[in-house]
Amino acid sequence: MEKLLYQDKNHSFILIGFGESKDEGGIPSNQYMVVHRTSAVLLDPGGFGLFPVLLSRVLKYVSLEHIKAVILSHQDPDICGGLNIWLEMTPATAYISRLWLRFLPHYDIKDIDRIHGVPDEGMELYLDRGFRLRLIPAHFLHSPGQMNVYDPVSKILFTGDIGAGVLPCSENSLFVEDFDSYIPCIEGFHKRYMASNEALRKWVRKVESLDVSIIAPQHGYLYRGENVERLLRYLYDLKCGVDLL
Amino acid sequence: MEKLLYQDKNHSFILIGFGESKDEGGIPSNQYMVVHRTSAVLLDPGGFGLFPVLLSRVLKYVSLEHIKAVILSHQDPDICGGLNIWLEMTPATAYISRLWLRFLPHYDIKDIDRIHGVPDEGMELYLDRGFRLRLIPAHFLHSPGQMNVYDPVSKILFTGDIGAGVLPCSENSLFVEDFDSYIPCIEGFHKRYMASNEALRKWVRKVESLDVSIIAPQHGYLYRGENVERLLRYLYDLKCGVDLL
Repeated sequence: MEKLLYQDKNHSFILIGFGESKDEGGIPSNQYMVVHRTSAVLLDPGGFGLFPVLLSRVLKYVSLEHIKAVILSHQDPDICGGLNIWLEMTPATAYISRLWLRFLPHYDIKDIDRIHGVPDEGMELYLDRGFRLRLIPAHFLHSPGQMNVYDPVSKILFTGDIGAGVLPCSENSLFVEDFDSYIPCIEGFHKRYMASNEALRKWVRKVESLDVSIIAPQHGYLYRGENVERLLRYLYDLKCGVDLL
Repeated sequence: MEKLLYQDKNHSFILIGFGESKDEGGIPSNQYMVVHRTSAVLLDPGGFGLFPVLLSRVLKYVSLEHIKAVILSHQDPDICGGLNIWLEMTPATAYISRLWLRFLPHYDIKDIDRIHGVPDEGMELYLDRGFRLRLIPAHFLHSPGQMNVYDPVSKILFTGDIGAGVLPCSENSLFVEDFDSYIPCIEGFHKRYMASNEALRKWVRKVESLDVSIIAPQHGYLYRGENVERLLRYLYDLKCGVDLL
């Protein structure tokens, strides 16, 4: 499934894969692409098995030489497993927390110079005239070096594993319709994988300073409207990880 | 480098790789093998690039059909990147925290039935007559589902990332000689990657109930004698991760 989440004359934020990982027998996951004029950025483009289907969707919008960056929320194989092929096929630079820079060669990535280590405080990524993305720390949620991506044009926040639900679950189609009935689909994962309530609270406070239209996670349904605030409130109060050890 | 860490008539605990990852441009890491009569277990056998050199060392002790298990401390690519080839070449079952079971297919592993999800509380792994290993939870250090391996015959505890130092650093050769002078080689990593002091304390209390001769991490020098206790005391008091966010 593929879906335009935002579009204006110059800019679009596209869901290019939604819960598709059947070929890999792994975790269903979401992939996104942000396009501004003829520059594009991929967010968490997934494992090797997803490459063919994502490629055909990407090519509807841009040529491969226009992919300037691949941003990786963290080091897990459902995110980085296909990175070597994207780096071979495009001129993109990959961005990942500096914590994981030296782990990526173990994914058989030869050209480490094309990977940029994002500092702990995050960074603003300038891609083209009028095209900037903000990399926002989400450390220990779950990865010690997780990074979110905020697009100030569409106001969409890509949250990686935060807000993630493992589908199939509940009665939604793309966006969460009823937050309370979706809680059973996200609670087990957040309680077990996220490091602690303190880490969640620090992240919520950071996100509250942004104007967010959509929270777009790497797994499961997306959050918009009132459900953005409901998710933040829910996570702010959630005991998890080390709190429950 | 290869080294027998323990040997008696029926049982040996062997360091089969020490700080070698040059071909991968990645993190230098250690690999271990436990052999009991004609049964063997590999601990964190590393990325694809290490396979050839490890294979030649493994074959000095056992045939590939005797490798009964591959135990993975967590989901990172410096640990799991070469798993598909070990599973192809041996009859081994792989063991990893249940948290990472569905992530492994993204390493291009076809036969998910050969991977066993270890429950959160750990488990005792019965491998052969007189050959049992204990899988001990080390959650959030750093991975939400990290597992240590304790061998009650050699009394060696394999700790994955705990106690890890990124080499080259300090004046040691295989074992840490002077703990205080080694602290600068481990402190940055533990402060930034380990989730919190609370997680460390829970782990230290668990380890104190074991009779440990050697702490064998996945990176850096090993700890024996008084340095085992010194490492435990140091970690018990260390503020890290979310404590410092």
